[in-house]
Amino acid sequence: MKRTTEKNLMVFSGRAYPDLSEEVADLLECGLVPQDARAFANGELYVRYEESVRGCDAFVIQSHTAPINEWIMEHLIMVDALKRASAKRITVVMPFYGYARQDKKHRGREPISARLMADLFKTAGADRLITVDLHADQIQGFFDGPVDHLMALPILTDYVKQKYGDQQLAVVSPDAGRIKVAERWSARLGGAPLAFIHKTRRTDVANEVVANRVVGDVAGKICILTDDMIDTGGTIVKAAEACVADGAAGVVIAATHPILSDPAVDRLKNSTVTEVVVTNTLPIPADKQFDKLTTLSIAPLLARAIREVFEDGSVTSMFDGHA
Amino acid sequence: MKRTTEKNLMVFSGRAYPDLSEEVADLLECGLVPQDARAFANGELYVRYEESVRGCDAFVIQSHTAPINEWIMEHLIMVDALKRASAKRITVVMPFYGYARQDKKHRGREPISARLMADLFKTAGADRLITVDLHADQIQGFFDGPVDHLMALPILTDYVKQKYGDQQLAVVSPDAGRIKVAERWSARLGGAPLAFIHKTRRTDVANEVVANRVVGDVAGKICILTDDMIDTGGTIVKAAEACVADGAAGVVIAATHPILSDPAVDRLKNSTVTEVVVTNTLPIPADKQFDKLTTLSIAPLLARAIREVFEDGSVTSMFDGHA
Amino acid sequence: MKRTTEKNLMVFSGRAYPDLSEEVADLLECGLVPQDARAFANGELYVRYEESVRGCDAFVIQSHTAPINEWIMEHLIMVDALKRASAKRITVVMPFYGYARQDKKHRGREPISARLMADLFKTAGADRLITVDLHADQIQGFFDGPVDHLMALPILTDYVKQKYGDQQLAVVSPDAGRIKVAERWSARLGGAPLAFIHKTRRTDVANEVVANRVVGDVAGKICILTDDMIDTGGTIVKAAEACVADGAAGVVIAATHPILSDPAVDRLKNSTVTEVVVTNTLPIPADKQFDKLTTLSIAPLLARAIREVFEDGSVTSMFDGHA
Amino acid sequence: MKRTTEKNLMVFSGRAYPDLSEEVADLLECGLVPQDARAFANGELYVRYEESVRGCDAFVIQSHTAPINEWIMEHLIMVDALKRASAKRITVVMPFYGYARQDKKHRGREPISARLMADLFKTAGADRLITVDLHADQIQGFFDGPVDHLMALPILTDYVKQKYGDQQLAVVSPDAGRIKVAERWSARLGGAPLAFIHKTRRTDVANEVVANRVVGDVAGKICILTDDMIDTGGTIVKAAEACVADGAAGVVIAATHPILSDPAVDRLKNSTVTEVVVTNTLPIPADKQFDKLTTLSIAPLLARAIREVFEDGSVTSMFDGHA
Amino acid sequence: MKRTTEKNLMVFSGRAYPDLSEEVADLLECGLVPQDARAFANGELYVRYEESVRGCDAFVIQSHTAPINEWIMEHLIMVDALKRASAKRITVVMPFYGYARQDKKHRGREPISARLMADLFKTAGADRLITVDLHADQIQGFFDGPVDHLMALPILTDYVKQKYGDQQLAVVSPDAGRIKVAERWSARLGGAPLAFIHKTRRTDVANEVVANRVVGDVAGKICILTDDMIDTGGTIVKAAEACVADGAAGVVIAATHPILSDPAVDRLKNSTVTEVVVTNTLPIPADKQFDKLTTLSIAPLLARAIREVFEDGSVTSMFDGHA
Amino acid sequence: MKRTTEKNLMVFSGRAYPDLSEEVADLLECGLVPQDARAFANGELYVRYEESVRGCDAFVIQSHTAPINEWIMEHLIMVDALKRASAKRITVVMPFYGYARQDKKHRGREPISARLMADLFKTAGADRLITVDLHADQIQGFFDGPVDHLMALPILTDYVKQKYGDQQLAVVSPDAGRIKVAERWSARLGGAPLAFIHKTRRTDVANEVVANRVVGDVAGKICILTDDMIDTGGTIVKAAEACVADGAAGVVIAATHPILSDPAVDRLKNSTVTEVVVTNTLPIPADKQFDKLTTLSIAPLLARAIREVFEDGSVTSMFDGHA
Repeated sequence: MKRTTEKNLMVFSGRAYPDLSEEVADLLECGLVPQDARAFANGELYVRYEESVRGCDAFVIQSHTAPINEWIMEHLIMVDALKRASAKRITVVMPFYGYARQDKKHRGREPISARLMADLFKTAGADRLITVDLHADQIQGFFDGPVDHLMALPILTDYVKQKYGDQQLAVVSPDAGRIKVAERWSARLGGAPLAFIHKTRRTDVANEVVANRVVGDVAGKICILTDDMIDTGGTIVKAAEACVADGAAGVVIAATHPILSDPAVDRLKNSTVTEVVVTNTLPIPADKQFDKLTTLSIAPLLARAIREVFEDGSVTSMFDGHA
Repeated sequence: MKRTTEKNLMVFSGRAYPDLSEEVADLLECGLVPQDARAFANGELYVRYEESVRGCDAFVIQSHTAPINEWIMEHLIMVDALKRASAKRITVVMPFYGYARQDKKHRGREPISARLMADLFKTAGADRLITVDLHADQIQGFFDGPVDHLMALPILTDYVKQKYGDQQLAVVSPDAGRIKVAERWSARLGGAPLAFIHKTRRTDVANEVVANRVVGDVAGKICILTDDMIDTGGTIVKAAEACVADGAAGVVIAATHPILSDPAVDRLKNSTVTEVVVTNTLPIPADKQFDKLTTLSIAPLLARAIREVFEDGSVTSMFDGHA
Repeated sequence: MKRTTEKNLMVFSGRAYPDLSEEVADLLECGLVPQDARAFANGELYVRYEESVRGCDAFVIQSHTAPINEWIMEHLIMVDALKRASAKRITVVMPFYGYARQDKKHRGREPISARLMADLFKTAGADRLITVDLHADQIQGFFDGPVDHLMALPILTDYVKQKYGDQQLAVVSPDAGRIKVAERWSARLGGAPLAFIHKTRRTDVANEVVANRVVGDVAGKICILTDDMIDTGGTIVKAAEACVADGAAGVVIAATHPILSDPAVDRLKNSTVTEVVVTNTLPIPADKQFDKLTTLSIAPLLARAIREVFEDGSVTSMFDGHA
Repeated sequence: MKRTTEKNLMVFSGRAYPDLSEEVADLLECGLVPQDARAFANGELYVRYEESVRGCDAFVIQSHTAPINEWIMEHLIMVDALKRASAKRITVVMPFYGYARQDKKHRGREPISARLMADLFKTAGADRLITVDLHADQIQGFFDGPVDHLMALPILTDYVKQKYGDQQLAVVSPDAGRIKVAERWSARLGGAPLAFIHKTRRTDVANEVVANRVVGDVAGKICILTDDMIDTGGTIVKAAEACVADGAAGVVIAATHPILSDPAVDRLKNSTVTEVVVTNTLPIPADKQFDKLTTLSIAPLLARAIREVFEDGSVTSMFDGHA
Repeated sequence: MKRTTEKNLMVFSGRAYPDLSEEVADLLECGLVPQDARAFANGELYVRYEESVRGCDAFVIQSHTAPINEWIMEHLIMVDALKRASAKRITVVMPFYGYARQDKKHRGREPISARLMADLFKTAGADRLITVDLHADQIQGFFDGPVDHLMALPILTDYVKQKYGDQQLAVVSPDAGRIKVAERWSARLGGAPLAFIHKTRRTDVANEVVANRVVGDVAGKICILTDDMIDTGGTIVKAAEACVADGAAGVVIAATHPILSDPAVDRLKNSTVTEVVVTNTLPIPADKQFDKLTTLSIAPLLARAIREVFEDGSVTSMFDGHA
Repeated sequence: MKRTTEKNLMVFSGRAYPDLSEEVADLLECGLVPQDARAFANGELYVRYEESVRGCDAFVIQSHTAPINEWIMEHLIMVDALKRASAKRITVVMPFYGYARQDKKHRGREPISARLMADLFKTAGADRLITVDLHADQIQGFFDGPVDHLMALPILTDYVKQKYGDQQLAVVSPDAGRIKVAERWSARLGGAPLAFIHKTRRTDVANEVVANRVVGDVAGKICILTDDMIDTGGTIVKAAEACVADGAAGVVIAATHPILSDPAVDRLKNSTVTEVVVTNTLPIPADKQFDKLTTLSIAPLLARAIREVFEDGSVTSMFDGHA
């Protein structure tokens, strides 16, 4: 008995940030698979799909936002349910990769939680990952399988170019180690000059920076401060202050992942920063919205990547050979 | 270069319920290994051990209590850190096994989360498990390695026997499927008569019971209602009411795991139950304590099991061949 | 060089019960793949497929009947041969799951053979399982992959309804722990009243029951005694006797798996039971046939499940969301 | 809490051939671990150890004799029980490796059952293997772990030397492919001349040889016909006849594994062979004993190997660097 | 969103012997996938594919020739890159299987490198292997997955038959253990008589043979000396000399794998051998070509096997049921 | 039968750089295990240990130097031989981790060879790794097990401090991304000021730097240029030139791994650099020695780490909590 093989794209969403998943599904012109997802009285999570998923090419989207451990666990449980329900291939879509910052042992006897996450998803049944702007590129190597590593760069630079392109710009990296990303920004902004912040973190207290110094010439320019994420905002706001202290005409922060843990919003609101541009890889609740904040949707990028993966197209070509 | 091999017992504790771990460590006459455990601003967890753990025989205790997903993730991360820090053997001690109730697919397209948990701990680096009173014995088979499955039965029955042994007792199981546990109670209470509750759960609404009927003769007796856990308390309180309606002289609830999700405490307090006896496999916060509640410590049982495991003794013999 | 992918259903049969496999293959309108299967002089088994199986979607049917270890080994060897011959996907079809009753450690230092079986088939190359009425639902969680767990319930109840539907029925479970299955029977028989047998097994002697008591009202009714299997028949016949003693108008036994180990046939023949209804998940040799025995074919169920799996349909929908 | 680590040797025996295991245990001056092993009514096997095995260095002996699939399954189940009961290390001792002859695909679409066996034991929990005279040395590579491959050669040659050493000997290999083993025999018999049989097997009928021709000079000599096993005896008896036809003064057959499937005993009894020397890697039931048959015990070799493994000695040195 | 599944054949070539890969690709009428492959200054290898390989059915050809470890490593790295770039299925094509001769422990404390190779490729991401004329058939069992084991026999025999078929032939095996291959030669050459060389290797010095003796009648015949490989040529040239010494009318050497390590070429050139026929599973550099050497292309065989694998045809049928 | 467990340290050395291994073994006061290691005629490698290694705690040292693929393969084969010879624990010691620079996909469709290496060693049988100054700390996370990541920092800084400590120093990082290592240098050199080189690599041509600019004040100071490795030396020599151009009083290069691929030695010799300080994680052949080159031995560090691992001491404490 012979049949032509068909593949069937199905998109699933965890409960962390359904709006993003819906936007992705809309762009793909397919709905989200209906499900019954909830927590039991003691916090144990439950999910059940309300349609047959047998043989499907499953893409399971979840934002690793607060409460992050709960949403990661839900993500794992969703994958387990898909595996046991005979999905043909399971792609875990994590716009922000939780625990990416614990990608090495900073000191002895620490975990390497970013590797652990890769292994947990593999164990649950993930065949492949799609993620955006990893904290370190090496994390791709933590997963034993294909990882499509997307970049928000085109989205962010297009916006900045359109809005600030007629002014004198400088691309500033808040961390010397991320200078290569700034170089790509510069290239896409027509060769804008580069600068970066030389800082020293304290190893015994998290997120605290001792000193900042601008390396490069920012005087009179609009500084585009780029980073992969804004967590408590301490680093980036101090970087912005350093730019202003060095004579910058203005500072625009552009970052992919708006974690915005307290007191990030207060810090950003109260800073001299002109605008904060982020994507929606993570949800920003209403009480964290503020005037200077611009959110660009990552959904078109995710939708296109999912389509390329589903249709055996090329994700690399979406980024001119990078990724 | 030859050396006699030594083994070194080290006990680690997650932050869910440190009091229990300390009690266990005290009984073992060894302290808990000092550690730096905390959450970052966005909820990601971190742990670092402050002493060398190289070559140790590690026992990692965590109670899977609310917020349960957070504590399970911490448990996993602790295991990962131990594995990477060269612990020789890692025994995961989970007095209450989180997600044990999702041990099968009640309907199609559900996860089997209890199996997933076993696999996640294996992946993180767990060599073996110690746990107490699993929701179903089959869960032992979910872990690919040794599981020491302890029973709180002797602790609970000894207490009941001492306090109520001179009265007329009946052992009542709130679920026909758990009748075998009740038989063991009966045997330890000198052959007290058995009864159980015949109930029907609704499959479309969680934790809701349609009807209860006592099977067996409880009139004039103190009913010892036994169960593995008390979650929202609905089932057990209705069972108690059924006993009373059938003429029971009193009802004592004895259960291993005091989950006590809302509104369990209100239900129990307002019920006609004489006493609720539980162990401390899970912590009971101060605002959930109430007069009728008696908590027996599980720590001596855990400590003895850890000692037997460390010294290659016998855990089975702790329970007369069972376990 | 591009090609449209085709999938090709092929059905394979072990030698334990070829009639069932042929019936399944006929219903699927495809023959069984011809093979050379035999035992060498010392009992080692051998199999070779006589047609190319490259790229096929293989379903390998074997009944785990006596000599059970031989047939399980043949089943494993068949899977190995398929894996090495480049079958694309291998589904192991075990109408009766051998060793399902050893699904937990009843006492310390026992194996969990049901988990071992799952792992052995995984190791040999099984991608997925199809089985019928597992002894415990948790066994689904023993296999690391999809398990399609079919229910003989519709087949058995349809027969009973048609034959006895005009009489007063009661559904009786021989074991309090299986009451939920009886509830499903009741629902399909128009709400027939429930009863069950309260029994105590001896732990030191296998298959011996100390005492039976009917819980529920069976007087004047035709009792439908339901169980997952009939092995030596001791339990079920004693249950039938208890029903009769309580005034039942008749007893019909309905069970999925007719193991019928000695002296089951004698016990059943000599009992007061009206009819024994089973399926043919296991073969019943001619010398075990007896007048009161009715065998319903499981083949249509297996065939439909195989077709749904092959065509990415829904198995869950075959059972109204269960399974 | 520190302890000096102790290791504890424990020897376990399947039910296939307890006499051999007891002999091994006696030589090691430790008893066999008492157990409850039996078959349920439907042939499913069960085993339970009656002593704690926690932390032990376990050696599990089973002869893969008829009914071979049953005994292999018991072997696997014994390993599973040991793994779950916390044995520290599990060495599977299979004096004869079942399914060793299916060590390659003789034709397409066959299994490689010898590899499958290695994987099944690994899955069940075996850490290492001890076996004797594998059908092909490559089988050692099928197991992912250490294999101690023992040789019966010293036992057999010592016997032959003592009994026939004063006569003119020739070492004859019944199969050109096993000539290297004959060379070792020759070396240990003081450089006795070599010969072998050139035969052609039919591929479509098992165990049937078309023609035999002696290559080498055997006239007037006592031919020592060596092989790894005697199954139905067809090959070896025809080889003996060929020797006699070529003028041999007598033929002594020496083989490690006495499978002796029918009609081996008849063939050997009725042949012109002077003596048949075997070891007891497999049991020889009373009705298969015959006058010309001499059985040498393999137990001292197994016992010494177990002792070397337990005490981290050297197995290789038992065989002058080979093995 | 549904799509018909397509599969896409892509052929990749390592740098060891691109001519062979190109010939294969030409026969398949598809080009080799363009790539950037090179060594860094310190010898670390690098590869990058210049086209999307997402979802393709990849066949990766590399000849394991000198420098053999470098080419094996490149082969592994190519597989890793394909796995991470989302190839759907990866078939490793190794016309000559490197390290095949270390397929067992000749003495204690040796590696089993042939098994190690199988595991390394599996780890890198290989789903299946295609190889030609393995040194021992058991090596198929070293890989945990399908192995298509091709035979050069038809290619070699067709050539010999056409050129020498009108003369009196004898098929001579240089090693008694490979006599079955010679039997297949004989069958394809119309039943030419068989002979073989009885030799003894020294175990302490590699590749050195102590003595040779022709078994069988070769006088006046053209001897077709067949082997799987020619490494240093010592064995085969001595075998040829033995044939000549026994009165052979001529000697033609036919071997699949032309390793031709020094001083093979000198030995062969200076020998009395009439012709040396090999395939091009390994490249023969210009300075190793010599007049008597005839090279037959293995490419048609590889191309046909790849096509059968891609199209779910039958490889076994290419060899009349063998392989 | 009980025994006290002993552990036995054994050190093994590949042939890439035996002098280093001997130095380590001397410091540990144990010899290297004698072995027979060689290449066959076609380049296949072979190793055999000449002493029993059963039960030993094995440390296998190999320098991943040119020909790097050959030495990595030998390293893997050594591990395989140890695994099969029953070593108890296998620690792979790679002073320089080969392929560490391919730790991520710089562009799409590349391998992640550093992860592949980790997996290959795991597959071969490695339980744990010891390595020095990884190119990126994340590589620790590539291995699924404990990695002891040693730092040459104390060795290098002690030498520099002693020789140049009385002069005005600046610590210069040739790469902004490695600034944190420079900070540690600064701390150990009494707070010497930091600087670094801002450079741009071309992505399409390997090892080519477009432009260098010193960030920080180096005028009049001895610049300590620190890096993890010197490969072709292009980057570091240009960095030195930039320092000199900015008025440095002198430049001392300090790097852990002296790869010294051509034309590194010429570049360094011809540069204005005062001294080049390296360790001997890799061998420096006589023809690559030059006057300005100082080699410090890494052997004491390796020996101490091995001792700590063997004796269950602390490696972390060797580096004040780092590593």
